Amino acid sequence: MKKEALIKFIEHKAYAIRCWSIAMTAKAGSGHPTSALSATDIVAVIFFYAMRFDPYNYENPDNDRFILSKGHAVPVLYAVWHELGLISDAELMTYRQSDSVLEGHPTRRCVYVEAATGSLGIGLSVGVGEALNAQLDKRYYRTYVVMGDSESSEGSVWEAAQLAAHYKCDNLICFIDVNNLGQSTETMLDYEIKKYVDMSTSFGWHAIAVDGHNVEALMRAVDEAHCVDDKPIMIIAKTIKGYGVDLVAGREGFHGKALTGEQEKIALQQLQKNFSAAASFDENSLQWKPMHPHQSEVKHRGPCEVIMMPRSEYTKGEMIATRRAYGLSLAHVGDVCDSVISLDAEVKNSTHADIFESVYPSRFFQCFVAEQNMIGMGIGFDRRGKIPFISTFSSFFSRAHDQVRMAAVGQSALRLVGSHCGVSIGQDGPSQMGLEDIALMRCMPKSVVLYPCDAVSTHKLVEQMARYDKGISYLRTTRMATPVIYENSEQFPIGGCKVLKKSENDVACIVGAGVTVFEALKAYEILSKQNIFVSVVDLYSIKPLDASGVKSVALSSRNTIIVVEDHYPEGGICEAVRSALAENISADGSSGIKIYSLAVKQLPRSGKPEELLAMACIDADAIVALVKGID
Amino acid sequence: MKKEALIKFIEHKAYAIRCWSIAMTAKAGSGHPTSALSATDIVAVIFFYAMRFDPYNYENPDNDRFILSKGHAVPVLYAVWHELGLISDAELMTYRQSDSVLEGHPTRRCVYVEAATGSLGIGLSVGVGEALNAQLDKRYYRTYVVMGDSESSEGSVWEAAQLAAHYKCDNLICFIDVNNLGQSTETMLDYEIKKYVDMSTSFGWHAIAVDGHNVEALMRAVDEAHCVDDKPIMIIAKTIKGYGVDLVAGREGFHGKALTGEQEKIALQQLQKNFSAAASFDENSLQWKPMHPHQSEVKHRGPCEVIMMPRSEYTKGEMIATRRAYGLSLAHVGDVCDSVISLDAEVKNSTHADIFESVYPSRFFQCFVAEQNMIGMGIGFDRRGKIPFISTFSSFFSRAHDQVRMAAVGQSALRLVGSHCGVSIGQDGPSQMGLEDIALMRCMPKSVVLYPCDAVSTHKLVEQMARYDKGISYLRTTRMATPVIYENSEQFPIGGCKVLKKSENDVACIVGAGVTVFEALKAYEILSKQNIFVSVVDLYSIKPLDASGVKSVALSSRNTIIVVEDHYPEGGICEAVRSALAENISADGSSGIKIYSLAVKQLPRSGKPEELLAMACIDADAIVALVKGID
Repeated sequence: MKKEALIKFIEHKAYAIRCWSIAMTAKAGSGHPTSALSATDIVAVIFFYAMRFDPYNYENPDNDRFILSKGHAVPVLYAVWHELGLISDAELMTYRQSDSVLEGHPTRRCVYVEAATGSLGIGLSVGVGEALNAQLDKRYYRTYVVMGDSESSEGSVWEAAQLAAHYKCDNLICFIDVNNLGQSTETMLDYEIKKYVDMSTSFGWHAIAVDGHNVEALMRAVDEAHCVDDKPIMIIAKTIKGYGVDLVAGREGFHGKALTGEQEKIALQQLQKNFSAAASFDENSLQWKPMHPHQSEVKHRGPCEVIMMPRSEYTKGEMIATRRAYGLSLAHVGDVCDSVISLDAEVKNSTHADIFESVYPSRFFQCFVAEQNMIGMGIGFDRRGKIPFISTFSSFFSRAHDQVRMAAVGQSALRLVGSHCGVSIGQDGPSQMGLEDIALMRCMPKSVVLYPCDAVSTHKLVEQMARYDKGISYLRTTRMATPVIYENSEQFPIGGCKVLKKSENDVACIVGAGVTVFEALKAYEILSKQNIFVSVVDLYSIKPLDASGVKSVALSSRNTIIVVEDHYPEGGICEAVRSALAENISADGSSGIKIYSLAVKQLPRSGKPEELLAMACIDADAIVALVKGID
Repeated sequence: MKKEALIKFIEHKAYAIRCWSIAMTAKAGSGHPTSALSATDIVAVIFFYAMRFDPYNYENPDNDRFILSKGHAVPVLYAVWHELGLISDAELMTYRQSDSVLEGHPTRRCVYVEAATGSLGIGLSVGVGEALNAQLDKRYYRTYVVMGDSESSEGSVWEAAQLAAHYKCDNLICFIDVNNLGQSTETMLDYEIKKYVDMSTSFGWHAIAVDGHNVEALMRAVDEAHCVDDKPIMIIAKTIKGYGVDLVAGREGFHGKALTGEQEKIALQQLQKNFSAAASFDENSLQWKPMHPHQSEVKHRGPCEVIMMPRSEYTKGEMIATRRAYGLSLAHVGDVCDSVISLDAEVKNSTHADIFESVYPSRFFQCFVAEQNMIGMGIGFDRRGKIPFISTFSSFFSRAHDQVRMAAVGQSALRLVGSHCGVSIGQDGPSQMGLEDIALMRCMPKSVVLYPCDAVSTHKLVEQMARYDKGISYLRTTRMATPVIYENSEQFPIGGCKVLKKSENDVACIVGAGVTVFEALKAYEILSKQNIFVSVVDLYSIKPLDASGVKSVALSSRNTIIVVEDHYPEGGICEAVRSALAENISADGSSGIKIYSLAVKQLPRSGKPEELLAMACIDADAIVALVKGID
C-alpha cells in the first residue's frame, strides 16, 4: 500500500472517530468529547499504522497492546474499535447507559479495554508490566500507551518512567497528548514541549516531539520509535483540545462537556468543513488490513490450570516468621507454576521475596521504592496471564491504594503480601506499622484478606492465593518469629477458620489472627489455671469470613466474642466479625451475641514488641482482664 | 569567625554526631546507623553553617526549617540537637525506648521534628508547603530537606519537584544523600550523579553536584544555593553509606543494623582513627553561635483563636449540591480567618474550591493532578500555622492515603474534602466514585469523618472542621444538587446526628447520610401512606458517632436499624454504627438491636444516578422492601 494512500485512509478514519466521539457523547448527554478529539489522530495512527495485531482475536498473546491512560477520552477507543468493524453503530450509541459495557471511563467489562483507567497516571505503569512480560516471555509485541498532559504531573508516571528505562523497555511506546488544557485550567507546563522532551530524556527515554494532528508526522515518529534500541520511547505530541470543532477547539470551559442539540449539529458541520477531503474519502478504495502480529515461538504461559504445591515440612513448635514462610511458599508455588512472578519494592530481605528471587531470578522484578508503579505493573502482568505476587511492608500498600482500587475496578487478580504489620514490629515506630491495611484491603468488591499465624497456614494460603483469580487477594505477614502450631496436613480454605480451644465450659470465644492468636493461647493458659475456660479461634481468613463457624463457637461460649487484633478498630477484624455475624443473625435477633473489641485504639510508638502489645491492650493480660471483667 | 576554623568546628561536630549515632543505635539494639553516617556531614553543614534559626525557640516563625525526609536516618537528627545542647546525653540514649520521644522514625512527639517521616518520599512535599508558606507570609526563612537516594524513585518526589519549580521556590533547598545502597540492593541509579543532576534540571531546579563528605565543598554548595533566584535548589551529594566506619562503609548488608558489643567498640575506634583531627578538636576554642533568623515584619498568622462564621442564608427546599455549599462555606471561613488556605488538585470547578479562589486567590494553591504532593504540602502548611482545606474527588484521596496516614502519625490537622462520592455521581463510572473513602478516613487515630446532606449542614460542618485541630478531618460532598432541609439556625456539632422523623409507632430506624438521607425520607413518605412508620436519622457525623442518640431512636423503633449508605459495606457507615452501638450495649446485651445494612455490595457501573442507586439497592424502594420484609 502506498504511503500517501494510507495517510488519506487514516485521516478518513480519524474523521470518522471524531464524528462518532461527538455523536456518542451527545447521545449520552455527558462525556469528554474534546479530550477524545485531541487524541484522535494519535490513536488512529497507532491502530491503523503502528500496531501489529489480530483485532478478531484480542487475546492473541503476540498482539501489540494499547492502553488508554487518559481514560476520560474513551470515546476515541470505542470509536476506533467501531472503525475496525468490531463495535456496531447501535452499540456505540449505548455509551454510558446502565446496560452497556461502553462505560464512561474504560472498564474491563468491554473486551477491547486492556486496563481500567480513569484515575490518571496509571496506564504507563500497566504498560511497563506488559512490556516486561514481553521481555520475560520472549515475545515481539509492543505496548502503546496514550497519556494526557495533565496526568504527567502524577508521580506514578515518573515511577513508571524510571523503571521502564532501568529495564530498557524499547518495546514500550508512550504518547503524551499535550493539549495544554486540563479540567479547570491550563496545565502546569503549558505547551512547553521542550520541557517534556528534556524530562523524558533525563529519565532515560528516547523522546520525540511531533505535531499530534499531522498523520504523516505521527507515522514518521512511529517509524523512528520502532528503530530505537534499549530505551523506551516517549512521543510528545502537540495537540489542540477539541481539534477540528471550531466551537470548542483550544478553548477553556469545555472539559467533560457533551455537545448536544444545536451545538452537536454545528460541531459535525465544522468537522465536515475542516476535514473535507477526509470526509469525502472512499475508504473502500483501499484494502486496509492490520499487520499480523510477529508470532513468538514461545508457547503462551497463561495462568496454570492446576496449582498444587507439595505439602510443607514444618515441625510443630518450630519458630519461623510468617514473612519468611511466605518467601519459602512463594518459591514452592513458583516451582509448580511458571506463570508465578514476584514484584518487590526494595524490601525483599524484609518481605522475603528474596527467597523466590534466589530461585527464579528472571521471574523476580525489583521495582525499587515505588509502590504505585509496582501495583500498576502487576495489573499489566495479570492482564497478560501472569500470576503476580506483589510484596512490600503492609503499611506501604497505602501508598498505592488508588492503584489497588483501580486494579479491583479492572478485576485484576493481584496477590498482595504485606509484611511488618501491627505494633508487633516494635522499635521502628508507627510510620512502619501496618495498622489500617486490613481496612484498606477489605473495602473492594471480591477482595480476599488472609492473615496466617504460622508457617503451615501461610504455606497453604499462598497456594490458595495463587488459585484465586477473581480479584485482589491480600496476605498479611508478621515480622517476628512465631511457633508452628499446625500439622502439615491441615487444610486452610479461603473463608475458613480454626478452632484451637473449645470446651463445655467456655465463658467467651477469643478470636485472634496472626500474632494475637498466640496472645489468645497465652490467655487461655493463664485462665485455665484459674479454672476459667475460653474457646480460641484462629480467624486466618478475614474476608470472606466464616460467620457460621465463628457463630457456632460463640453460641457455646456464653454468646460472647472477644476479637483481639493488631490493627486499628475501624474497618478491622472486629468490624468484619460484627458485620458477618449481623448478616448471619437469626430472624428474631435472639442469638444476641456480644462482641467485644481489643484493638490498637491510639497512635502507637516505638518500643519492644511485647511492650507495645501491652500498651495497646491486645496482649494476653488484656484478654485475661477482659474475660474476668465479663465473667 | 574564620572559615577555616568553622570548617574544623563542623568537622568536629560531624565526628560527634557519628559517634552518638553509633552509640545510640548500639544501646537500642536496632536502628539505621549507616544511613545516619552517610548524611552526617550534610546535616552538620545545614545546622552549623546554612541555617538561620533560634534553636531555643523552635517555633519562631522566622526560623529556617529542616525536614529529614529519610526518616530512618533519625539518629543524625537527634544527635545534631544534642550537639546544639538541647538534648542531653542521657535522653539521647533513650532512643527507641517505649517511654522516649526519640522514636525509631521521627514523630512529632519530639519537639525538634518538623514532620513525621519514615514512609519515604514525603519530606520534599512538606518542604514545598513550608516554602510556599514563607512566600505567602512574606517571610525570609528557608526550608532545607534531606532526602535519600532510594526515595528519589518515589513518584511523590517528582510531584513535589514539579510544583516547587512551578511556584519558583528559591527558598527551598533539598539535598539528596546519594550513598548508592538501598535496603536490600544498590539503588536504581547507582552513583550516576549526572543523571540526578539532569533529572533535577529538567524538572526546573538549579542542581549542584558535590562531595557529600567534604564540609568545605558542602559549604560552597550552600553559598551557591543561597544566590539562586526563582528556582528551587537540589544539591546532589555523593556519599558513602556508613562513612567513617571501615567495618561497614560502602558495604551491603548493613542497612538497618545496629552495631553492638565488639562491633560498636571497633566502629568507635575507626571513627577516632579516620577523623583524628576532628576528634581531638577543642570545640571550646571557638564561640559558635547560630545565625539569627531574618525577622519578617509580618505578624505571625497562626491558627485563628476564634472562628465564627456568619449564619448561612439558605432557603428550605432550595436545590444546591453540598460540594457547591462547601465552596461557599470555605470562602466564608476564609473571611473570618486569614490562616485558612485552599489546596486543590486541578478539579476546583468540581470540588468548588474555585469559589474560594475567586475571593482569595493568594491563599489558593493549584496543586495540579498530584494528590500525594498536595497532602504533603498540607502537612507543611499546617506545621507553620495555617488551616489547610484540601479538596479533590473523594476517590482520589486513595491516591494519597499514605500521605494522609503519615499526616495522622504526625498529628497534622488537615481538613480534607472529597467530592463526587458514591454511585450517585452517575455516568462517569466506578473509577470516579468514592466508595471506600469513609473506610480510608475512619482508620486513623483522632480522625473525624463528616457527611452532610444539605447546604446548611455543610456550612456548619466546615466551620467545625476549621476549628478541629487534633488530627485529620474529612468532609464528604455530593455531586448532585439536593434540597436544603435544615433551618439556618440549626447546630451541627461534630459527633451529633439529626432525628428527622420519629413517631410512637416506628417499626425501624433508617439511618442515612448524604444522598441516602433523601432516599430514607422518600421511603418514609411511601411507607407512611401505607400506615407503616419509620424513624429517620441523618448521621452527618460518622466519626465520632452519636451512639446514644442513634440507640435511643432505635430503642423506640422496635430495636431495628437499617443503615443505608452510598459506600462499600466494609469500613463504612453501617460498620461504624455497629461498632459504636456494640460499645454502647448494655451489660447484659439485652438491648439486642438488629442492624441491617444497605450498601453498595458489587462493583457499580456507568448509568444515571437514580438507576445506580436502584441497582445498588440503596434507594427508597430498597428501603421500603426491607422494612416490609422485616415488619
